[in-house]
Amino acid sequence: MCQLLGMNCNTPTDIVFSFEGFRLRGGLTDRHADGFGIGFFENKGVRMFHDDKPSASSPVADLVKTYQIKSTNVIAHIRKATQGGVGLANTHPFIREMWGEYWLFAHNGHLGGFQPEEGKYYRPVGSTDSERAFCFMLEQLRNRFEHKPPVGKLFAEVATLTAQIRHHGLFNFMLSNGDILFAHASTLLHYIIRQAPFGEAHLIDNDVAVDFAAVTTPNDRVAVIATQPLTANETWTQLAVNELVAFRDGDIILRDCPDNPRYLSQQEGLAIARAVGVAA
Amino acid sequence: MCQLLGMNCNTPTDIVFSFEGFRLRGGLTDRHADGFGIGFFENKGVRMFHDDKPSASSPVADLVKTYQIKSTNVIAHIRKATQGGVGLANTHPFIREMWGEYWLFAHNGHLGGFQPEEGKYYRPVGSTDSERAFCFMLEQLRNRFEHKPPVGKLFAEVATLTAQIRHHGLFNFMLSNGDILFAHASTLLHYIIRQAPFGEAHLIDNDVAVDFAAVTTPNDRVAVIATQPLTANETWTQLAVNELVAFRDGDIILRDCPDNPRYLSQQEGLAIARAVGVAA
Repeated sequence: MCQLLGMNCNTPTDIVFSFEGFRLRGGLTDRHADGFGIGFFENKGVRMFHDDKPSASSPVADLVKTYQIKSTNVIAHIRKATQGGVGLANTHPFIREMWGEYWLFAHNGHLGGFQPEEGKYYRPVGSTDSERAFCFMLEQLRNRFEHKPPVGKLFAEVATLTAQIRHHGLFNFMLSNGDILFAHASTLLHYIIRQAPFGEAHLIDNDVAVDFAAVTTPNDRVAVIATQPLTANETWTQLAVNELVAFRDGDIILRDCPDNPRYLSQQEGLAIARAVGVAA
Repeated sequence: MCQLLGMNCNTPTDIVFSFEGFRLRGGLTDRHADGFGIGFFENKGVRMFHDDKPSASSPVADLVKTYQIKSTNVIAHIRKATQGGVGLANTHPFIREMWGEYWLFAHNGHLGGFQPEEGKYYRPVGSTDSERAFCFMLEQLRNRFEHKPPVGKLFAEVATLTAQIRHHGLFNFMLSNGDILFAHASTLLHYIIRQAPFGEAHLIDNDVAVDFAAVTTPNDRVAVIATQPLTANETWTQLAVNELVAFRDGDIILRDCPDNPRYLSQQEGLAIARAVGVAA
């Protein structure tokens, strides 16, 4: 199964520490070796890096590491190809413009039977179920709203569409316009919100630690969202099955959690993925 | 004034040699130091690199040099900000999806008074006249054609739209969907088609030469399009004022040239740019 990484903060922050552990899962500590992608919002603009090489050994990923781009919203994805061949057109995150803003989307899961009819505004370029789902969501949002609605209305509509799409399979995703970051779990997704007092964190996938107190100011707030926790000595919070959360400025502003929330273990999450054919 | 570079070929080719001379015009041998961008088509996918640093010293441009990405269609742009501030959202090439394909666009010129009404399908994210023109072109094409028309019809419509937009100022541009590359000159644009027998070429901006015979096969055909010729010992062909050309597989397949073609000298081109406020 693919893996997702996202970041949403109240001040531009570099994602190098988290990305360093995450990228090693692409070909070194795990088996997601069919390319990777990362998109950084910088004000209204987006800087995208895609590669069909494994993230662990990609020179593009090396650049991301050394360049230390600061951003308030980031979405990254490492890919184990299940639907659609290996190739740049099938590499997440996907990007489209809606309401005069760029939107980024990355998905981990499987929506094999999901074949929505051709959109008027948005059509997939590649052959993944993921890009079909992204285009469908934007198509419905754009059909419903000529201009960007207030955040509460937007969240409600995203929740409705998410519920509709997840009937077709597994739909762990992140979606962002550079302001809000939506995160939804069908199986496994975790987040952590780091704020003062900042401490030290140790990566699981690499012998690297960072003292956040030394690289932040007291007002910084940073949410990191990932398929699996990236650090060993911090407490990550798991999203419930079918939970949708909206982050803004490094904090949760809206959530849509089932009445009787259910949390999968890593083993259960992987077993479900395997059952629908997206095993790692 | 900004500078444009494009490549269209019948076999995936790396653009490193041309890009090497071109990028030095961003901050070193010329003054286009407000960022740069380059987009590579790889089959249906696009790999984009944007930076707001001058291309001559950008680590992203260093990556483009060392990574030697092979592509059949490339559009690059180095920017001297005239309309819209320096920032990623204003950095060419711009990208949108239309008819299930990605489209890249880069512009050099000035369309100050061009303020088309808000599009249904395509809206600018940044604040440049260039992105407004790109969105307007796609909006009109999409309004006219629900699906991609045959190339002749497409060319005719692009020619009509180009004529409409260039009344608003200077409109040197390149536009590509990864198959066809459209190039239009209001002032300065040159191209060269390299094919067997290949020879050696020397860059103008750098003491570098390449023997194309050593890095090509006899069937390769590569069109390179640039604001100014990049090599000193080859013959580049200039586009006439208001000429539109469509390249495919490294060759010209359609052109729309005025009856009495006029060709500007570099001095005249720069004088016109200066007169409308986009002097280098």
